Amino acid sequence: MAMITRADLASLDRADPLRDLRGRFSLPEGVIYLDGNSLGALPVATPARVADVVRLEWGTGLIRSWNDAGWIDMPARIAGKIGQLVGAPEGSVMTGDSTSVNLFKLLGAALSLRPERRVILSERSNFPTDLYIAEGLAALLARGHRLRLVDAGELPGAIDDETAVVMLTHVNYHTGAMFDMAAITRAAHAAGAVMLWDLAHSAGAVPVDLAGCDADLAVGCGYKFLNGGPGAPAFLYIAGRLQGDLRLPLTGWLGHAAPFAFEPGYRPAPGIARAMVGTPPMLSLAALEVGVDIALQVPMADIRTKSVRQSSLFIELVEQECAGLGLRLVSPRDATMRGSQVSLAHAAAYPVMQALIARGVIGDFRAPDVLRFGITPLYLGYAELWDAVAVLRDVLAGEAWREARFSARQKVT
Amino acid sequence: MAMITRADLASLDRADPLRDLRGRFSLPEGVIYLDGNSLGALPVATPARVADVVRLEWGTGLIRSWNDAGWIDMPARIAGKIGQLVGAPEGSVMTGDSTSVNLFKLLGAALSLRPERRVILSERSNFPTDLYIAEGLAALLARGHRLRLVDAGELPGAIDDETAVVMLTHVNYHTGAMFDMAAITRAAHAAGAVMLWDLAHSAGAVPVDLAGCDADLAVGCGYKFLNGGPGAPAFLYIAGRLQGDLRLPLTGWLGHAAPFAFEPGYRPAPGIARAMVGTPPMLSLAALEVGVDIALQVPMADIRTKSVRQSSLFIELVEQECAGLGLRLVSPRDATMRGSQVSLAHAAAYPVMQALIARGVIGDFRAPDVLRFGITPLYLGYAELWDAVAVLRDVLAGEAWREARFSARQKVT
Repeated sequence: MAMITRADLASLDRADPLRDLRGRFSLPEGVIYLDGNSLGALPVATPARVADVVRLEWGTGLIRSWNDAGWIDMPARIAGKIGQLVGAPEGSVMTGDSTSVNLFKLLGAALSLRPERRVILSERSNFPTDLYIAEGLAALLARGHRLRLVDAGELPGAIDDETAVVMLTHVNYHTGAMFDMAAITRAAHAAGAVMLWDLAHSAGAVPVDLAGCDADLAVGCGYKFLNGGPGAPAFLYIAGRLQGDLRLPLTGWLGHAAPFAFEPGYRPAPGIARAMVGTPPMLSLAALEVGVDIALQVPMADIRTKSVRQSSLFIELVEQECAGLGLRLVSPRDATMRGSQVSLAHAAAYPVMQALIARGVIGDFRAPDVLRFGITPLYLGYAELWDAVAVLRDVLAGEAWREARFSARQKVT
Repeated sequence: MAMITRADLASLDRADPLRDLRGRFSLPEGVIYLDGNSLGALPVATPARVADVVRLEWGTGLIRSWNDAGWIDMPARIAGKIGQLVGAPEGSVMTGDSTSVNLFKLLGAALSLRPERRVILSERSNFPTDLYIAEGLAALLARGHRLRLVDAGELPGAIDDETAVVMLTHVNYHTGAMFDMAAITRAAHAAGAVMLWDLAHSAGAVPVDLAGCDADLAVGCGYKFLNGGPGAPAFLYIAGRLQGDLRLPLTGWLGHAAPFAFEPGYRPAPGIARAMVGTPPMLSLAALEVGVDIALQVPMADIRTKSVRQSSLFIELVEQECAGLGLRLVSPRDATMRGSQVSLAHAAAYPVMQALIARGVIGDFRAPDVLRFGITPLYLGYAELWDAVAVLRDVLAGEAWREARFSARQKVT
């Protein structure tokens, strides 16, 4: 196979139908950002929008902005937009709270739909917070529920008639491996189980068709591929056919049928509004909307086409440029089974990543030995892949990473 | 008694030791803001701080800001400051999530401390979300827990040996009536119950001494008297002596002993850090800190002195200027039993409040017939009280309120 050259990649950039979207993001000079799967980049429009919410809507409008600036409608409005990205019909998504809290709500609701079953089935390498939330819920209920963990390869076979709910992350945070959502959902339903998907690494990154897959429940993250900002509010999805039956465990006043009537007893709001709990953080919510709006500018299929091409090229470039330098591909080689990231193992992954970051190539490290590189087609150029791999090669070939300091606390997700 | 004149109030403004703090807030021209108990005003320093977090920390720092900008430490740092306002020692407060979600965490934990008891005792007129959360938790547990509601006057007598937890809001959202925190907490402990306080209308408004009262658990709101912005993250308090025993029901990755080790099993972090769940909304959190910092500029006792003087004067002025106009005092007349608001009943309270707001006097309405006026000494002047009451008198004496339109959805808390 012919060597890939930087010129090849530059010509892909020139032909890239998404290239104009790069200008919608504000990225620092000298940085190649490959960590959008942890924290998405800042949209150019976000500072002004947040400033308006702060100065005009809060500062001048004060309490009146709940009506006059439409704050009260913002969670549902943004949810409707996110729904378009994940194949969810209007009225089936709500924004607010964190992914973890939303997972708790939906897992509690799922168990209530299968009162005679006791198993929450998940995957050993699922993102830990999902497992922790399930563990905490099972302990709280104290009715013999247990979290059963299997290897990804054992799915869907491990779903059986004891399984109340199958809880899986569509794209694995560590490896980027992607489940077949339709097939797993079918298998869950065939076994009588409820299917709950975590879309943290999917929403805005890969096409998702929740309704088409007949998914029951889902949660997702606002601060990764949706570019909503650090700690952006998360979202959740409840299939319309389930909304009437579900009793969500977190019953706050904004999920009440008449939140401003201040009745002493709880009556769930009709539809998805019942999934709200307390007042959402409006500054962070406003920022989220700007990020979501950008992803809506282009069909998800176009984002996916570029994502697959970029991640495949990244793998080829690494193999071409870094052969013999101790890297091992962790992500699936088959692009149809891979989300929008490439994970590589290296014995000295932590200091290697520190050295890369010091040179402006920002990915992240996952214990024990993984270098993660997120692919965000909305702002990542092809030639940047070449430049990133060149830096990776230089770091691995040199001694720089041996000097990189360890940091006791690295916040990365 | 001598008539109170506007000149009397203007002279109180000149002598007000807190008068300089007014300049720390950005309030619109032509507005007298009496709704800080629903949404606090915008601090002057907030827009720049939020803009820095957006442009520099997120935009330029990107994922590196979790370490380099200290994001990872922000929830605990802000919590420590809030702790100073509510008599909570370092390491006993955490910020994040909404008040409702925090209430769920602590109520779940409280019930686990009294497994042999089944009653959650609260007050009929408590803020509804507190009651809804308790109801939802009881339904989720399905172990016969029940929410028992009594009138405020029946407390502390109603606390008995069936009571697992007493859950009360220190200052009532509707009336402004304030419980004796020390006395009720003593009674709860004497009956073997856990005491959980909701400080939504207390933090930053009235002196609170959680440790001095030997309180067990508390939650509170960031967007009212702490001036943290719309939907600002809330906080919670767990007495140090309980932190080791409590199993919180929402076990997310940021509450794990080693969140970045990505272990499959949950191990609670030491101390209050276990109360974290998911990633907090950093833009909203940054705004909260600015508000909290202002409240720390003066002793809470000084804020309380001015608050009592202002609310008492407001009541006197209403009785002097609006006699015979159909108002009835709902808040306690005894200032020692009143928080930092004055509630007045009127048969046409809703259109009256609409007419007041149209004239720049912003309070809020609570069904069925209450006008609420929040007193925020950090930015409210004495002469403004005179002007507000003058507008109230004119509205009540005229016909303006009869024309005020009804709005189907008014978001106010």
